[in-house]
Amino acid sequence: MSISSQSIASVFSPQDSRNAQQVRKQIRQGVWHSHTSGLASDHVQGNVVILPEAQAGDFLRYCQRNPKPCPLLAVSEPGQSQLPSLGANIDICTDLPRYRVWRDGAVVDEPTDISALWRDDLVTFVLGCSFSFEQALLEAGLPLRHIEQGKNVAMYRSNIQTAPAGIFHGPMVVSMRPMKAAAAIRAVQVTSRFPNVHGAPVHLGDPTLIGISSLDAPDYGDAVEVMADEIPVFWACGVTPQAALVQARPAFCITHAPGAMLITDLLNQQLASF
Amino acid sequence: MSISSQSIASVFSPQDSRNAQQVRKQIRQGVWHSHTSGLASDHVQGNVVILPEAQAGDFLRYCQRNPKPCPLLAVSEPGQSQLPSLGANIDICTDLPRYRVWRDGAVVDEPTDISALWRDDLVTFVLGCSFSFEQALLEAGLPLRHIEQGKNVAMYRSNIQTAPAGIFHGPMVVSMRPMKAAAAIRAVQVTSRFPNVHGAPVHLGDPTLIGISSLDAPDYGDAVEVMADEIPVFWACGVTPQAALVQARPAFCITHAPGAMLITDLLNQQLASF
Repeated sequence: MSISSQSIASVFSPQDSRNAQQVRKQIRQGVWHSHTSGLASDHVQGNVVILPEAQAGDFLRYCQRNPKPCPLLAVSEPGQSQLPSLGANIDICTDLPRYRVWRDGAVVDEPTDISALWRDDLVTFVLGCSFSFEQALLEAGLPLRHIEQGKNVAMYRSNIQTAPAGIFHGPMVVSMRPMKAAAAIRAVQVTSRFPNVHGAPVHLGDPTLIGISSLDAPDYGDAVEVMADEIPVFWACGVTPQAALVQARPAFCITHAPGAMLITDLLNQQLASF
Repeated sequence: MSISSQSIASVFSPQDSRNAQQVRKQIRQGVWHSHTSGLASDHVQGNVVILPEAQAGDFLRYCQRNPKPCPLLAVSEPGQSQLPSLGANIDICTDLPRYRVWRDGAVVDEPTDISALWRDDLVTFVLGCSFSFEQALLEAGLPLRHIEQGKNVAMYRSNIQTAPAGIFHGPMVVSMRPMKAAAAIRAVQVTSRFPNVHGAPVHLGDPTLIGISSLDAPDYGDAVEVMADEIPVFWACGVTPQAALVQARPAFCITHAPGAMLITDLLNQQLASF
């Protein structure tokens, strides 16, 4: 029943696609294996990291010390595949469109179900994702070029170092969105309301000040043009913990596949701080 | 009893200088004729414009249409020299350290009391001033170079046009404070909380995009250096309505003398929007 990412309209009616539980049910049934951008768009989506309890303490401290790139939405009990604070009947073994299984820091499989890999010592971490604040920016009337151009957002390894914890450390990865100055000011206001999904920008203006030598060569995602009357605006990015995972090389780890997030029952507006 | 602006400590004890009513009483008694920067610093200070009722309607609409440069804190009844919403026993005829009297767009006198000029048709406008948000920035740990260097803030006529109303029109005057990017982002957050004292910046980055060809030559105030790792951040400025007054050339008008503000009983924190 696998389908391309273009044919979503043929699977989900607009009514269904706004309903988080309905979308999650269809993902669980194997109807959808691709990215979740635009699905149930009023709802919070999450980055997922699943680690054995032996490394989970380090990772929890890493997230606590680096809340802008690693904003924790939920942490499960060891062995518990439910996430009751994020949604009714979520089963992390089946409710992502696609997973990545890592062994010793390398991807070894990309399954659509991890029930066969589940263990009593696995702890699930769900981290906020920029989809939530991008929706808020769009609703505020602020254009986002990468969305207009159907691209992935441009991401860069900065020279801002995260605070290390146990085996986890590394540079902060940042996403960049070009904006006119007035839009950048408004974007600071809008995203400041959402500290649980990366919050306010970490930098704007000269990229070399945070160790980015060329905006044309992102480390992840797609390059987008910055016009003469725009400034690049940089946010802490959820790829940061994945980069730390690659460096830490835990023996076993499961994450979401890029863009294939966990869709929660929470509304983006529920995360707004004021 | 006139004294220099340096000798304030000899007149006001620290206790007194934090007390708005105490400071206002000494100003009324003629003890203080100079600028009010740093006096009763927890309290809101205001720009003052006094116009005959014949022009007051135009000016009120001008402020309503341009709330960022002209944030109205209070408007008196015609002929009423009290401002009860701003403080106990304020008398606008005596409670500013120094006034400017304008006839046909030119300053003709700078008295310390305007009781002899008062008329039954005069309307007083009090507008928020950047002292309030600067105190909030300093309390947030953000350095302000012009204050560190004992200078007046640098101000420029931008090419952003205000919305005209009756006889009043003209460019928005902006104040500029150089900041590192992270401080600029924090400054957007801090000043957004204070819409009644100019609020969030109107621009940041390239000054030529708002018609400022050289930061070294401010139209008002003093030039300050912008370091290589800083960006200029621009706020709407309370000089904007004075520039509009000069252009409109009303037959008669009274304002505060530069820097010699009305000290109100309101606390800066009372203006915070959240």
